[in-house]
Amino acid sequence: MSYSISKNTIEKAASVLEGQIHRTPVLTSSALNDLTGAQLFFKCENFQKIGAFKARGATYAASTLNEEERSSGFCTHSSGNHGQAVAWAAQQYGVPAFIVMPSNAPEVKKRAVRGYGAEVIECTPTLAARESTLIEVQKKTGAYFLHPFDDVRVIAGQATCAKELIEDTAALDFIIPPVGGGGLAAGSCLSAHYFSAHTKVIGGEPSGASDAYRSLEAGKLIPLIKAETIADGLRTSLGHHNFAILQPLMERIILVDDDEIKAAMRLIWERLKIVIEPSCAVPLAAVIKEPDAFRGKNIGLILTGGNVDLDSWRF
Amino acid sequence: MSYSISKNTIEKAASVLEGQIHRTPVLTSSALNDLTGAQLFFKCENFQKIGAFKARGATYAASTLNEEERSSGFCTHSSGNHGQAVAWAAQQYGVPAFIVMPSNAPEVKKRAVRGYGAEVIECTPTLAARESTLIEVQKKTGAYFLHPFDDVRVIAGQATCAKELIEDTAALDFIIPPVGGGGLAAGSCLSAHYFSAHTKVIGGEPSGASDAYRSLEAGKLIPLIKAETIADGLRTSLGHHNFAILQPLMERIILVDDDEIKAAMRLIWERLKIVIEPSCAVPLAAVIKEPDAFRGKNIGLILTGGNVDLDSWRF
Repeated sequence: MSYSISKNTIEKAASVLEGQIHRTPVLTSSALNDLTGAQLFFKCENFQKIGAFKARGATYAASTLNEEERSSGFCTHSSGNHGQAVAWAAQQYGVPAFIVMPSNAPEVKKRAVRGYGAEVIECTPTLAARESTLIEVQKKTGAYFLHPFDDVRVIAGQATCAKELIEDTAALDFIIPPVGGGGLAAGSCLSAHYFSAHTKVIGGEPSGASDAYRSLEAGKLIPLIKAETIADGLRTSLGHHNFAILQPLMERIILVDDDEIKAAMRLIWERLKIVIEPSCAVPLAAVIKEPDAFRGKNIGLILTGGNVDLDSWRF
Repeated sequence: MSYSISKNTIEKAASVLEGQIHRTPVLTSSALNDLTGAQLFFKCENFQKIGAFKARGATYAASTLNEEERSSGFCTHSSGNHGQAVAWAAQQYGVPAFIVMPSNAPEVKKRAVRGYGAEVIECTPTLAARESTLIEVQKKTGAYFLHPFDDVRVIAGQATCAKELIEDTAALDFIIPPVGGGGLAAGSCLSAHYFSAHTKVIGGEPSGASDAYRSLEAGKLIPLIKAETIADGLRTSLGHHNFAILQPLMERIILVDDDEIKAAMRLIWERLKIVIEPSCAVPLAAVIKEPDAFRGKNIGLILTGGNVDLDSWRF
């Protein structure tokens, strides 16, 4: 079977990204290994440029454009890390960036996007308003739209994360990415398929935003109508390209609820001493939820980002 | 001039600790470099065994004992990381540990000590009660007392931290440790003196627990009567051995208040994406307080530990 993204494309993405972004470290914790009975390898994308794996996809996608396509800058809509990633990628090329953000997005996120020299365009906080505002911005500026996940170049960029994890960790039985729009999940599936003989990919998804789980069960894309989860990075509907890759390649998806996510998040803060977003805790929550499936196995868990809004914390 | 701890002793401590504890990573942040105008190198002892540099001193001190001295186990009094360090060191030697802790110490700290197989002996929360309870414990158990800082073997162990930082970072102008009891501070001074031609050591101390600052000013040890600072790891009086090393070797001490500590702590969580204790933020707060002193310099900052009580956070 052949896929929309070749092994060669992912290798090219890895070589483009080398030196532009970080090869993030893989952390381990004997306490968490004892707790789960498994060997856990945490791929720390919270230490990535802009604080999240999204730097991979945006930077690689930007690199595939020709000078004319890049000349008017980039645009996207995002309330989270993809907006920062596009702003950062534009800054690397010295072109402008226009990020459509819901007016109720945390001030800290808007500040971060502006910190990379991008212009923030606020819109009312609905998907329809985001999309129509983006179209206006495109018309007015001529900026190139970089989609957050439903784009083969973005998926190829995100795939480099699991590729590194496979290269840096011996004999992984499983890789567990969280599943939101599916960019990282699809990329992880492709890298496991191309670069490992026996690593299977299992997704972790919040039960309050379980459209990918339901889509794989139904064998067709079922859009997310309403998302209720603290894992704010995973409140998006699975994309079309992403579904087409997950369907044949993802072993299965494990659902976890917000209490399970919070408990796993706390374990990671406490034991690994790193700051992660709630979305990142979903893979560990999945391992804790099904101990029998993972006991004695080598498991790569992707910690997707560390951009927590500390304003809402006790500082 | 000669000091109570030789270069050779610190080299021996480093070789004993190699493989027993972690050689912790040194992190950098372009955002924090931009903010301070300096090149900052953060030595991450929050990733150390037991989550703090205290593992160094306790483990090395334990290694210098003979079998008879070790046979009845170790004891100490501590409400913080040294208790965990002694418990962990005892576990490595398969001997018991007895940790005297104030009854009002956070449950999470007691759990952590017990997690390393040690016995927690509670006492009323005064220094007098701690000391008298410890004497009872010593009498009853015959356990060997490992002092948290005022001990040349402990200081030699803590010195290995700055030694690694010097080895792993090119041409440091300054190393800034926080100053509490002075184990890490004295060790840092000795390592800079022995292992670097031009690195100076400047201490960071909370203005609410400024006994080391006042002692260096006065030229004699002035005990801390009352400590008022959120930097809970630095609420101790400077030790005698420690003062004797700081007096000739420490360039000076910069005082920072709790607001400055909190702001620096937040910057580290937000930019480095790591979990650190308030005490660790003191060195960065010192750099931010005196920008003119540090602009354009290479500065090593020791992040001492990551054992934050997350019970008091919003999880």
